[in-house]
Amino acid sequence: MEQVGADACLLSTPVNVYYTCGHIIIGYVYIPMQGEPTFMVRRPNNITGEHFHLVRKLEDLPALLAQKGQSLPKTLLVEGDDISHGDWLRIEACTGAKLLNGSKVIRYVKSIKTAFEQEQLRLSGKKHTEVMEKVPSLYRAGMTDHEFSVEVERLFRLNGCLGLFRIYGSTMESHMGSVLSGNNAAAPSPYDFALGGGGMHSSLPLGANNSVIEEGQTVMVDINGNFTGYVTDQSRTYSVGKLPQLAYDAHQVSIEIQEAIAKAGVPGATCEQMWQLSLDITKKYNLEAYFMGISQQAKFVGHGIGMEINELPVLCGRNPQPLEAGNTIALEPKFVIPGVGAVGTENSYIVTENGMEKITFAPEEIIQID
Amino acid sequence: MEQVGADACLLSTPVNVYYTCGHIIIGYVYIPMQGEPTFMVRRPNNITGEHFHLVRKLEDLPALLAQKGQSLPKTLLVEGDDISHGDWLRIEACTGAKLLNGSKVIRYVKSIKTAFEQEQLRLSGKKHTEVMEKVPSLYRAGMTDHEFSVEVERLFRLNGCLGLFRIYGSTMESHMGSVLSGNNAAAPSPYDFALGGGGMHSSLPLGANNSVIEEGQTVMVDINGNFTGYVTDQSRTYSVGKLPQLAYDAHQVSIEIQEAIAKAGVPGATCEQMWQLSLDITKKYNLEAYFMGISQQAKFVGHGIGMEINELPVLCGRNPQPLEAGNTIALEPKFVIPGVGAVGTENSYIVTENGMEKITFAPEEIIQID
Repeated sequence: MEQVGADACLLSTPVNVYYTCGHIIIGYVYIPMQGEPTFMVRRPNNITGEHFHLVRKLEDLPALLAQKGQSLPKTLLVEGDDISHGDWLRIEACTGAKLLNGSKVIRYVKSIKTAFEQEQLRLSGKKHTEVMEKVPSLYRAGMTDHEFSVEVERLFRLNGCLGLFRIYGSTMESHMGSVLSGNNAAAPSPYDFALGGGGMHSSLPLGANNSVIEEGQTVMVDINGNFTGYVTDQSRTYSVGKLPQLAYDAHQVSIEIQEAIAKAGVPGATCEQMWQLSLDITKKYNLEAYFMGISQQAKFVGHGIGMEINELPVLCGRNPQPLEAGNTIALEPKFVIPGVGAVGTENSYIVTENGMEKITFAPEEIIQID
Repeated sequence: MEQVGADACLLSTPVNVYYTCGHIIIGYVYIPMQGEPTFMVRRPNNITGEHFHLVRKLEDLPALLAQKGQSLPKTLLVEGDDISHGDWLRIEACTGAKLLNGSKVIRYVKSIKTAFEQEQLRLSGKKHTEVMEKVPSLYRAGMTDHEFSVEVERLFRLNGCLGLFRIYGSTMESHMGSVLSGNNAAAPSPYDFALGGGGMHSSLPLGANNSVIEEGQTVMVDINGNFTGYVTDQSRTYSVGKLPQLAYDAHQVSIEIQEAIAKAGVPGATCEQMWQLSLDITKKYNLEAYFMGISQQAKFVGHGIGMEINELPVLCGRNPQPLEAGNTIALEPKFVIPGVGAVGTENSYIVTENGMEKITFAPEEIIQID
């Protein structure tokens, strides 16, 4: 706040509220530069604790601050890329403050995880690993990708996955993640995930499309690891029958790319260097045509993770941002082989002074599940 | 647009984009008062058809309009309560137009469903009914509410539920809906659903809380019916063992309230009249203390449904809005009985000249599942 010249900040999105006050509340978190914070709770009506106040509406803020002997802020940092224009006007009218759009700085601050947050992610990674290890046992001959997806979802949920898949921004949607097999892995999706899939219905064009998983095809399982409010990202590839050698080779290159980035990914290394590293290795093996899709190729090889699946930083081209210790990142160099499906793995990492610490551990090889 | 004095409107949220162009795209739908619409598609890259144009960014709009011989709008309707303040500024800078906040008028227009939309909702209602009828068979003695919830989710998904539960606004979150048993039905939640539940983790305080379902308790299943992109809402109550008479009585009152509202709910009847009707019947039976929760009581008895679960109109107090033919509404008069759990049912309806047409049909009585 000091750096951007704000007297206070006001947060209302669920993830930022949880980040700052430790509860999901519908209301507002007000944090001044000087003095105590004020947690304004519209719902639920049973939250107690220091700094929590039951309120009816935002407009109760001035009176609350007056009670505490705090003056209204002159400049106020708000989540300008997240709250609606209508909410922006309402906050402006209620506080009389000059509003500053703090979304970018808030996202940056949140991209460096605290020790507590890293522990939550390690815990999610541990549970995510245990569940993934049981996935091969779910396959039955003749299953569709959708049926397999539903059994994976059930397994995850029974083992404590909260189900909800939080995504930053309003343009990406998903139910728990995706399970892709065969050529559906190449279907372009509107959403900015690494791979798409046609989906089951035009209103949700993502993931499984109800094809029977055929001999000689892969199934890539990429279901979210939200076991603690903090979500790990881990994908694994399975096969029905044997695959063409190209598929195994590309899969090994995915692992090689992750190992190279995990080693090179020390604080100070830049996001665009990590992306370039993935391209260099891909080119060395002449696999560019298959990298991150075929007809529509994703232009990143990794992304921040936290309470949301698409946090900062993004490992893409033209991004000179340096990695910092405490960044938590999913690496997902994936390849789509025509007629076969997606190959590669995805893992979650924490950036440390010695490179990236891996926190998802399911076996990496392509497991034949039939 | 004419009524609000706009030359054109620009939409970008997934549901409004789908509503107007029939596809989920990441991009923008531009609809002028005069002339052809322009569907600007950033992703996916394989959409073809009249009016669709692949673009890189919003700022491609002026050139596209110039190609079509259309001039830039002077006043432009945008989704001001939905898009971020940052996006509002970007649209303003790109078009030079005076922006009008069209969210309220767009929500109103969408609250009156077209024949096609009504058919999608009837179809979801039909599938939702078929699936609900199989729910009792999922119970096993000793199950927790979470385990039961997971089996219900699996059943829904295997039968075509898309899983994704779209909710208007940024402050409500849910994974597929909720399954509530025993006293957890009374737990206040931050979210503005009819009932809450403590949830499995502080980051998602809603729904099942991992209690074993005990003899003498109810389980209320309220899982979303998104089978067609349009979501029906239907809740049913099950019991383990027999319940106190109060529970059966209150359950019957829930059904009576729905029947009364369905009969009275003709075009022109107001939302607040429907709410008052639910209160009057509740009072007649001295059940106010249990209506819509105990310590935190919801202040509505019904809500619009469509692509999102919380559309207009809302049947609550101080809402003089009249019902209109084509409104689609979920009625959910629910009661929470201490020590027992939630009772009542919820059904989806279409407002017609003759009252409300019911579109969800699972048996309404409390079914004993053990």
